[in-house]
Amino acid sequence: MRILQLHANYMEYQPIKKEIEKAEAVRTERVKVTEVVVVFTSIEEADDRDTATKAADELAISFENLRARRILIYPYSHLSTSLAAPDAALQVLKELASQLENKGYEVHRGPFGWTKSFTISVKGHPLAEQAKTISGIGSTDENVLELESKPRSSFHILNPNGDTTNLDK
Amino acid sequence: MRILQLHANYMEYQPIKKEIEKAEAVRTERVKVTEVVVVFTSIEEADDRDTATKAADELAISFENLRARRILIYPYSHLSTSLAAPDAALQVLKELASQLENKGYEVHRGPFGWTKSFTISVKGHPLAEQAKTISGIGSTDENVLELESKPRSSFHILNPNGDTTNLDK
Repeated sequence: MRILQLHANYMEYQPIKKEIEKAEAVRTERVKVTEVVVVFTSIEEADDRDTATKAADELAISFENLRARRILIYPYSHLSTSLAAPDAALQVLKELASQLENKGYEVHRGPFGWTKSFTISVKGHPLAEQAKTISGIGSTDENVLELESKPRSSFHILNPNGDTTNLDK
Repeated sequence: MRILQLHANYMEYQPIKKEIEKAEAVRTERVKVTEVVVVFTSIEEADDRDTATKAADELAISFENLRARRILIYPYSHLSTSLAAPDAALQVLKELASQLENKGYEVHRGPFGWTKSFTISVKGHPLAEQAKTISGIGSTDENVLELESKPRSSFHILNPNGDTTNLDK
């Protein structure tokens, strides 16, 4: 998951046109949210419920620093080149929104799969703009993958009769 | 080089505070550019003059499609995790601006090294938002690197006297 997080005075958007067949059903009216942290989010191939949990935890730390209570999760495909399939992406976005709501934030979510016009007014303090990369693979899984992909040598003697003797045993 | 290219009704920005010591000397006044393609740009470690040339060529194709003549190059560190050093980054940004000017565009450039507030109003058509990755390494260089890093086998017979006979010759 790739995130560009912008602390904004306001963000206004309007769904214009369906980008994909599986675009969410929404009313194409203009929406404006003020005093908000906008979370531009690309859901990537490996992302799942666990990634959403990690993202929610990491975002919450940042929101506390910013003393922010109002969040807009805005699907944004332009932050990654290895995007998840639309169904999976929408599910992870909903999960992320739900988990942040459970943490007590006021969560808005921009519609998925739409070409939208938008206007954002970004604040000018040093923490107003932050990029985050959240990996869905925990450290345990990474070790397993590493073991599976690492070539391992074993040594054998080829006996004259065609049998082999394994030197590792 | 990583680029997020937004076709905008307008963009307005104001330098607030120096982010780095080597920030450009600028007046901290508010700047507004209308009917503009904003090129949010992260200059990466390997980027050089050639990368700027490739970027200018690729951007120009896109600007022609958008029938855009007014460009704002806006330094943006949040699109990459392997950023160039500030001096090098600024040089590549200036080179990119200069090359686009030579192609006949009206080029504005946001100040480098500043925390800025900004407001952008992005158009709602399907090509309004585009991400680009421009690599500075040409295909020839890539082939050289590939050859250098590829392990090559050679076969030898170890003779009883300690000499070796190369089987490839």
